[in-house]
Amino acid sequence: MIYLDNAATTKPDVECLQRAEKYLSENYYNPSALYAEGYNIQLGLREAKKNILATVAACGNFDLIFTSCGSEADNQAVFCGGKRGNIVTTLGEHSAVFNAANELKQRGMDVRFAALNSDGSVNIDNLLSLIDEKTSIVSVIHVNNETGAVNDVAVIAQKVKDRNPRALFHSDGVQAYGKIPFALTKNIDLYSVSAHKIGGVKGVGGLFKRKNLVIKPYIYGGGQESGLRSGTENVFGIKNFEFAALKKYSNISDSYNKTRTLNDLLWEKLDKELFTRISPYDNSPYILTVAAEGLRGETVLHEADDNGLIIGTGSACSSNEKKRYSRVILACGISETIADGVLRLSLSSETTREDVWQAAEILNRIVKNRKEIMF
Amino acid sequence: MIYLDNAATTKPDVECLQRAEKYLSENYYNPSALYAEGYNIQLGLREAKKNILATVAACGNFDLIFTSCGSEADNQAVFCGGKRGNIVTTLGEHSAVFNAANELKQRGMDVRFAALNSDGSVNIDNLLSLIDEKTSIVSVIHVNNETGAVNDVAVIAQKVKDRNPRALFHSDGVQAYGKIPFALTKNIDLYSVSAHKIGGVKGVGGLFKRKNLVIKPYIYGGGQESGLRSGTENVFGIKNFEFAALKKYSNISDSYNKTRTLNDLLWEKLDKELFTRISPYDNSPYILTVAAEGLRGETVLHEADDNGLIIGTGSACSSNEKKRYSRVILACGISETIADGVLRLSLSSETTREDVWQAAEILNRIVKNRKEIMF
Repeated sequence: MIYLDNAATTKPDVECLQRAEKYLSENYYNPSALYAEGYNIQLGLREAKKNILATVAACGNFDLIFTSCGSEADNQAVFCGGKRGNIVTTLGEHSAVFNAANELKQRGMDVRFAALNSDGSVNIDNLLSLIDEKTSIVSVIHVNNETGAVNDVAVIAQKVKDRNPRALFHSDGVQAYGKIPFALTKNIDLYSVSAHKIGGVKGVGGLFKRKNLVIKPYIYGGGQESGLRSGTENVFGIKNFEFAALKKYSNISDSYNKTRTLNDLLWEKLDKELFTRISPYDNSPYILTVAAEGLRGETVLHEADDNGLIIGTGSACSSNEKKRYSRVILACGISETIADGVLRLSLSSETTREDVWQAAEILNRIVKNRKEIMF
Repeated sequence: MIYLDNAATTKPDVECLQRAEKYLSENYYNPSALYAEGYNIQLGLREAKKNILATVAACGNFDLIFTSCGSEADNQAVFCGGKRGNIVTTLGEHSAVFNAANELKQRGMDVRFAALNSDGSVNIDNLLSLIDEKTSIVSVIHVNNETGAVNDVAVIAQKVKDRNPRALFHSDGVQAYGKIPFALTKNIDLYSVSAHKIGGVKGVGGLFKRKNLVIKPYIYGGGQESGLRSGTENVFGIKNFEFAALKKYSNISDSYNKTRTLNDLLWEKLDKELFTRISPYDNSPYILTVAAEGLRGETVLHEADDNGLIIGTGSACSSNEKKRYSRVILACGISETIADGVLRLSLSSETTREDVWQAAEILNRIVKNRKEIMF
């Protein structure tokens, strides 16, 4: 099988699994325990934190809260950051931010959604126009998970702070972390990441937090994570995340460049008579979103699967949302006939040139045949 | 090493790890994905849910929400159940309920804590006296994690409903699930459990929910878990939890009886001149809490560790809480000199007669020597 749904989840890296395995067996102790065996696990968690922080926050100005997933990190940012006044976010957010923001709206809060450009990036002028002196938090996704559009969050964060220096700036970095070379800047207060999108295992995420920023926990209890996230730490998952992050960051630029070439090749090989490009040309190399106009993406997805190619149609969570069209794709101003045929092809650093050639060939063939039957 | 801190965490069961391993390798797909490989993972999750439900809710009247830990399940119960009026809980709760309740109190809610009996069980009369027509939720821990006292939650839930049929009843079952033979009754609305306390891995918990009960999610996003808990499911952890639960429940009564004998033996072998019993005599067989009066529990813990015996001093989360005395032990009406010397010895179904003999011998020797030096 050729796997091009890496934005939904990645295959855990075998080497990182092996390195972390001992935390499922002999090193199983509770990291909060007072005896030496427990304390040693605690030291291992601190090392994981330090190493992951060093990947994008070498400046030492950030802390990291380990969470159970990117969604939990997003929820903590939105619910614990959006405490007063209004909150400003975008129509291009992952559901973890979008639905958390909508929940705040339902509770009576003033929640404002900035419009998107046609490629899924945020319309910055519109975003800035929504921010006022009462804005408590602004949340902008780093890499749009449906189109691969990259929001320059360092620049946006600066503009947000120019407008209201007291507003927190959060970014959902789940599709950027470990993929797009990038460092956290002083204007970014909170940044969400996830392990299983970069070769780690499901069940671990993190929320980077600017060091002097005081926020409340979202999960209360035994006071783990310096009181900011209670619950016995998922030691195996966290150590595995550390190893996966270190591996990705050891050659992030090379992987980026290699994947850029493959993403461009994939587009080059797709038949332009059959596919409309949704992704911008300066997209994340890890995502190429196209549409087979007039067809249903889901149908193409199933036939591709039968032909040895795994792809996505939009958000990974689509089977839960039960909506025909992606709200993000529609918010790009894309028509329903095109939205119906959206296919998300998402790469990893493991994707090969051969995978890309074959994937393009399979997709061209399927879509061509289907269109010939239809028209 | 003899490991008697199983209430903090248990060593993952090797067989269950092996059975679940494939979900870290070939079966890594996102369970929300539309293609067959993803859907098969979804089916695996449904099977896990069905099997875990059958362990304590064979009646078919319950659903199960998979969470990232027992603490998250407790937080969802308290924050999503305690929406109006007042909430009633006890002074004997795990910090996940206690601190969540205190957070609600800080937000201005009327939060009432019932007193404890001297063994750590809730004073039922006091609990009932706190409930009125405005009570939205009552939360009572099933097995006290510090003393091993068992609250008969089926009986208590009935009394709660007699007093206010609209109040939700929640119980933190983390120290009971997979250990105490028990079934959920119609008066129990919510029940929290954790995988890593019964031979599963850290990072997975669950919240049983009465079927017709409508509660809000605590983590919003892609709509996983029927919209009640978003975030990509920790498939490996959940399948591993299923296998661990099935294994525990395949011989829960035998394990209970065997552990009962070992718990009694442990108390029998401890020198009554040196140790005061904190646990009641009808305690959970998996926990025996004693105090070495006049000594500091932490000192005994470290010396025991040096001598090949791992024990606890109170809540597993104590290294985060940085308080000398356990609030639960003090709430039992136990003096500070006794509270200082509390030791929690917690067993698993893997604990052997030899472990118990040796543990008692080590503890008797350490405490005797220390007392001889001191007095």
